[in-house]
Amino acid sequence: MSKSSSNIMALAPNTSNKRETVCIFGTGDFGRALGHKIIQSGYPVVFGSRSTQTSNLIPKDAEVLSHAEAAQKAAIIIIAIQRQHYNFLTPLAEILHGKVLVDVSNNLKINQYPESNAQYLAQLVPGAKVVKAFNTVSAWALQSGTLDASRQVFVCGDDMEAKQMVMDIVRALGLTPLDKGSLLAAQEIENYPLQLFPMWKFPILLSLGLTAFFFFYCLTRDVIYSYVYENKDFSFFIAISIPNRICPILALTLLALVYLPGVLAAIIQLYRGTKYHRFPDWLDKWMLCRKQLGLVALAFASLHVLYTLVIPIRSFVRWRISSRILSQALNNETEPLNTTNAWLSDSYLALGILGFFLFVLLGITSLPSVSNNVNWREFRFVQSKLGYLTLVLCTTHTLVYGGNRFLSPSSYRWYLPNAYMLSLIVPCIVLVVKFVLIFPCLDKPLTRIRQGWERNPQYSE
Amino acid sequence: MSKSSSNIMALAPNTSNKRETVCIFGTGDFGRALGHKIIQSGYPVVFGSRSTQTSNLIPKDAEVLSHAEAAQKAAIIIIAIQRQHYNFLTPLAEILHGKVLVDVSNNLKINQYPESNAQYLAQLVPGAKVVKAFNTVSAWALQSGTLDASRQVFVCGDDMEAKQMVMDIVRALGLTPLDKGSLLAAQEIENYPLQLFPMWKFPILLSLGLTAFFFFYCLTRDVIYSYVYENKDFSFFIAISIPNRICPILALTLLALVYLPGVLAAIIQLYRGTKYHRFPDWLDKWMLCRKQLGLVALAFASLHVLYTLVIPIRSFVRWRISSRILSQALNNETEPLNTTNAWLSDSYLALGILGFFLFVLLGITSLPSVSNNVNWREFRFVQSKLGYLTLVLCTTHTLVYGGNRFLSPSSYRWYLPNAYMLSLIVPCIVLVVKFVLIFPCLDKPLTRIRQGWERNPQYSE
Amino acid sequence: MSKSSSNIMALAPNTSNKRETVCIFGTGDFGRALGHKIIQSGYPVVFGSRSTQTSNLIPKDAEVLSHAEAAQKAAIIIIAIQRQHYNFLTPLAEILHGKVLVDVSNNLKINQYPESNAQYLAQLVPGAKVVKAFNTVSAWALQSGTLDASRQVFVCGDDMEAKQMVMDIVRALGLTPLDKGSLLAAQEIENYPLQLFPMWKFPILLSLGLTAFFFFYCLTRDVIYSYVYENKDFSFFIAISIPNRICPILALTLLALVYLPGVLAAIIQLYRGTKYHRFPDWLDKWMLCRKQLGLVALAFASLHVLYTLVIPIRSFVRWRISSRILSQALNNETEPLNTTNAWLSDSYLALGILGFFLFVLLGITSLPSVSNNVNWREFRFVQSKLGYLTLVLCTTHTLVYGGNRFLSPSSYRWYLPNAYMLSLIVPCIVLVVKFVLIFPCLDKPLTRIRQGWERNPQYSE
Repeated sequence: MSKSSSNIMALAPNTSNKRETVCIFGTGDFGRALGHKIIQSGYPVVFGSRSTQTSNLIPKDAEVLSHAEAAQKAAIIIIAIQRQHYNFLTPLAEILHGKVLVDVSNNLKINQYPESNAQYLAQLVPGAKVVKAFNTVSAWALQSGTLDASRQVFVCGDDMEAKQMVMDIVRALGLTPLDKGSLLAAQEIENYPLQLFPMWKFPILLSLGLTAFFFFYCLTRDVIYSYVYENKDFSFFIAISIPNRICPILALTLLALVYLPGVLAAIIQLYRGTKYHRFPDWLDKWMLCRKQLGLVALAFASLHVLYTLVIPIRSFVRWRISSRILSQALNNETEPLNTTNAWLSDSYLALGILGFFLFVLLGITSLPSVSNNVNWREFRFVQSKLGYLTLVLCTTHTLVYGGNRFLSPSSYRWYLPNAYMLSLIVPCIVLVVKFVLIFPCLDKPLTRIRQGWERNPQYSE
Repeated sequence: MSKSSSNIMALAPNTSNKRETVCIFGTGDFGRALGHKIIQSGYPVVFGSRSTQTSNLIPKDAEVLSHAEAAQKAAIIIIAIQRQHYNFLTPLAEILHGKVLVDVSNNLKINQYPESNAQYLAQLVPGAKVVKAFNTVSAWALQSGTLDASRQVFVCGDDMEAKQMVMDIVRALGLTPLDKGSLLAAQEIENYPLQLFPMWKFPILLSLGLTAFFFFYCLTRDVIYSYVYENKDFSFFIAISIPNRICPILALTLLALVYLPGVLAAIIQLYRGTKYHRFPDWLDKWMLCRKQLGLVALAFASLHVLYTLVIPIRSFVRWRISSRILSQALNNETEPLNTTNAWLSDSYLALGILGFFLFVLLGITSLPSVSNNVNWREFRFVQSKLGYLTLVLCTTHTLVYGGNRFLSPSSYRWYLPNAYMLSLIVPCIVLVVKFVLIFPCLDKPLTRIRQGWERNPQYSE
Repeated sequence: MSKSSSNIMALAPNTSNKRETVCIFGTGDFGRALGHKIIQSGYPVVFGSRSTQTSNLIPKDAEVLSHAEAAQKAAIIIIAIQRQHYNFLTPLAEILHGKVLVDVSNNLKINQYPESNAQYLAQLVPGAKVVKAFNTVSAWALQSGTLDASRQVFVCGDDMEAKQMVMDIVRALGLTPLDKGSLLAAQEIENYPLQLFPMWKFPILLSLGLTAFFFFYCLTRDVIYSYVYENKDFSFFIAISIPNRICPILALTLLALVYLPGVLAAIIQLYRGTKYHRFPDWLDKWMLCRKQLGLVALAFASLHVLYTLVIPIRSFVRWRISSRILSQALNNETEPLNTTNAWLSDSYLALGILGFFLFVLLGITSLPSVSNNVNWREFRFVQSKLGYLTLVLCTTHTLVYGGNRFLSPSSYRWYLPNAYMLSLIVPCIVLVVKFVLIFPCLDKPLTRIRQGWERNPQYSE
């Protein structure tokens, strides 16, 4: 909404307020793009470069001077140069004394150097006030004006005033500065733009693996078996029927995997009799990606809902229903209403609807803007109480779907049980263990342990 | 996303920058957990305790000293002690002079004491700079590292610099500080973690009550009546058919209740001829929970959509359709297309779809992150104009559903009208009154009253 | 959540902390409403007015003095007067020297004056510290206490301390201050409340135009043609069948229009051999509203999904299915399963489901709170990679839907092709051009151009 107006403002002549000159060291792509944008926002810009020859790539409103001359013209100097060339700043230390140096650099790998580029810069030019900023902004986005992505610019630095000056420039550019504290945060800020959904890797790989396994499992049972024994071509099951078996299985399994680490942690704490012992690493990592696991599970659940709702529109289903009616009509049969079937079918659907509804609620409360408006007690209530209720509803939904088919031998083809039976393993384990943990004889010591009590104090670190 | 990297940073050796010692008074569970986390973030920590005997529960990198000794080692002292023991600080007043005292305490009840704990602390140690922080963070979350919930830490205090120092520690811990202003805000911050969806209580209780009422109403009409008079067992209606009657009724009624207080307020203002008179308390409270009422209504509407879309998959519905076709086939009947029925059925579905679509739009704009990006004019446009359009569409949807059944005597069983007729009462009242209020003879004075005009100036406070 | 508690706090007696007097110039509606609220928050308030006669509209706890007297009583003066009357402040310049003047004014039109009201105020009273604030808050909302909309108050000003004082008052009122930087931002802040979805105008007008065109197109083909040649009344198609043709067409076309400007920009850059040349204005504007175009497309896609899922409940569809079965029953026909049809129908549905699923994912990542938690690399990945995948899936969905009807003459009525064929034009162009641009002979120079390389350096500005 505010985009257009901020652009309007930026382009309007700002004759009333004079803004301070900004110096940019480096005439590379990012330096030029940033220079362009800063000039548009009403600041005079001067470039510091090895060769003072004006290139026609450089915005024509900007002067190009030697580094030393340029630095003297401004209080803020943006270092748009790669870290390996920072050495040239050492001889300029005297001129840079007291100036605000803005480090905009990024690395190619996460934690590439022991210290962040900004901290390295601060060591090279001890008299300057180093501020980290702008590294999350892309030159291309600056140039094209289409800052669709995050307009947030992380800023950190040890000098409050210097930080404030940089944040004012950020705001003038129509971006949102976000104060990340002291220069120590520079490492995190420099790592940030290199990440590609780091927390999502495990959940997505896991679900891809499970999807592949269950795809071939169902293919064998539903398509190949029919082809081999009944010589029927059900290859079109690949489009909807098989995905609609895989999706609920993955949704239920992944949802159970969200609650499994909590249950395991409780067992470990009960066994150790203390909470002051670190969990094994794999458990820690698992606990950290529970939200992502849950959201992937929700994605599969949503697909399951869509696949289920299109069932009556499918050409195959329409053919099956009409051929069943036709055969009844030809045989003059009429069937009375089977109340048990009606009960099973309706309660199975109702459980699924309620489970999915609560699942979506859980998903909505995990949106950053919603969870930020919720306190710890409310978050625990939703994620723990409502989460377990969702798991119970979805597990029951699957159990009722099975109905009395569990023991029927016809549902075992090539000794393979129906795929949905496999999906019940993890959730049933989680629910049974959780149910056991609720008993007072286990719940009481667990609560005490979580409040800091220890069975064998010598155990602690 | 930034979680992992902030943890990486926290664990990396921070040799380059030295951080100031933090003192913690109190070696209880929360003090120890916070101490652990602060040490991990690279700060030296010293504990102040009555007994200086090092417990092995206390992080081994931390010193444990007497309160006085510990306080002298640090500029920031975190008071991890309950309010009732704050008295012991009075003799230390001299040592604490000029120090930053961080109050992390919580109460057991909302507004337990006349002044907030932080203000009480400030009165006890007048020379210190008291900052309220960390009270919304749980010890267990700090310990387990799974800060899934809000990472926001509310900070308030009268001294800007002290607040800044505390906010830097908050950031170093990987949390997000949120400046809430002066120490006066401490009361609000202390009440915050004790709340459990306070604004949702009334809407949820109301909808539970209405759900119970309509459940028994529909049970009587649809299940018991059929059982008594036709001896048919439709008990399975409890799973889907009856919920799918209750949900739309509640959705429509609650949506109308969102707009009723606005209409009542307009009538009151017109009658009084002024806006400078407080509304009755119940109306004020009602107006404050309109958003929650609307979201509960949206939840019921979503359930109604899901229940409706599974209709063709229901075993009962399939049986009913096929038995109708079979009976036609046996009697050699064919039915021509009834265009009126097609019109009624299609327009009723179309109205429902459009109404639900707008309802979801309203729900999305009430997400905090969306409504924050919308100005007052845009918000009013969406919530008022689109809101009324939604109400009109949903009411018409119900009216068309009724079709010409309103007057048919067969729809009155035991003199009870169809349940959906009851759901039309509130929305029709709201729409009629709103329609009347749009007339210029009422709209003009109302607009003037809302702009500050008064009919009888002696009326005002 | 925090609303109620903030209100509780505001109403509680704040005896412990004394707050500084706030002066308000102007006793109009907004001044009075703000005064009421500030008094409730525990500040003494004094009004400055031309006539010192106490009106009973003014809160009774407030004094009313002459402008000069009132100004002397407070450090902060809120100027609740319209811009055209600011002249009266010139004679008061001496008294106002060093005071904080809060400009709360709004204009009637965007960019009504060359400089913002706040800057104009700063020029009139050069010795005062002008802060812009509160202009986004409505008097009515302050009065009624129902600040449902954004609680954000934009604040800007050149003096840090003055800004801080104003932000403390904002917080005390239960609102959230948002520092927008120096007074230069006042123009933007003043334009903000006048906007009504400025970025949405083009997408919405475009989709309304396309909707109208396709409505009459489908009406002609599906209703009028049938009426003229077959004398059948399918007018009820207007309710669902025709909307369900229009929605997917618009969804697909608008989605393709989201990616068309990117493709055009690439062609322009390749042709010019530089990126340092501004794009034509229309392309710039088009690129800025891509997010809105995409969301409108998502809205149409959602409607398409809903319209499709209700198909089996439609009375017309039930009649058509049962009459087909009846005619087969009467003729003793049975139809074997047509595997090709089953494949077409299922894969068409599956493609649609997957396309819609990815489309919703794209929509969720464009929520402000989600996109703020995503870095540039992740945002590009989602919006570009997943976006094109969505476009490919949806286009294939439409192609498979067509099946082999493209060449059948029966699908051309009055020489008009089926409407869905028209919807394929733009997406196919986008996909073909994008496919061509992926070839290394074009991709390599394009990447170099985007990194700053130029073919003919004399081309640049």
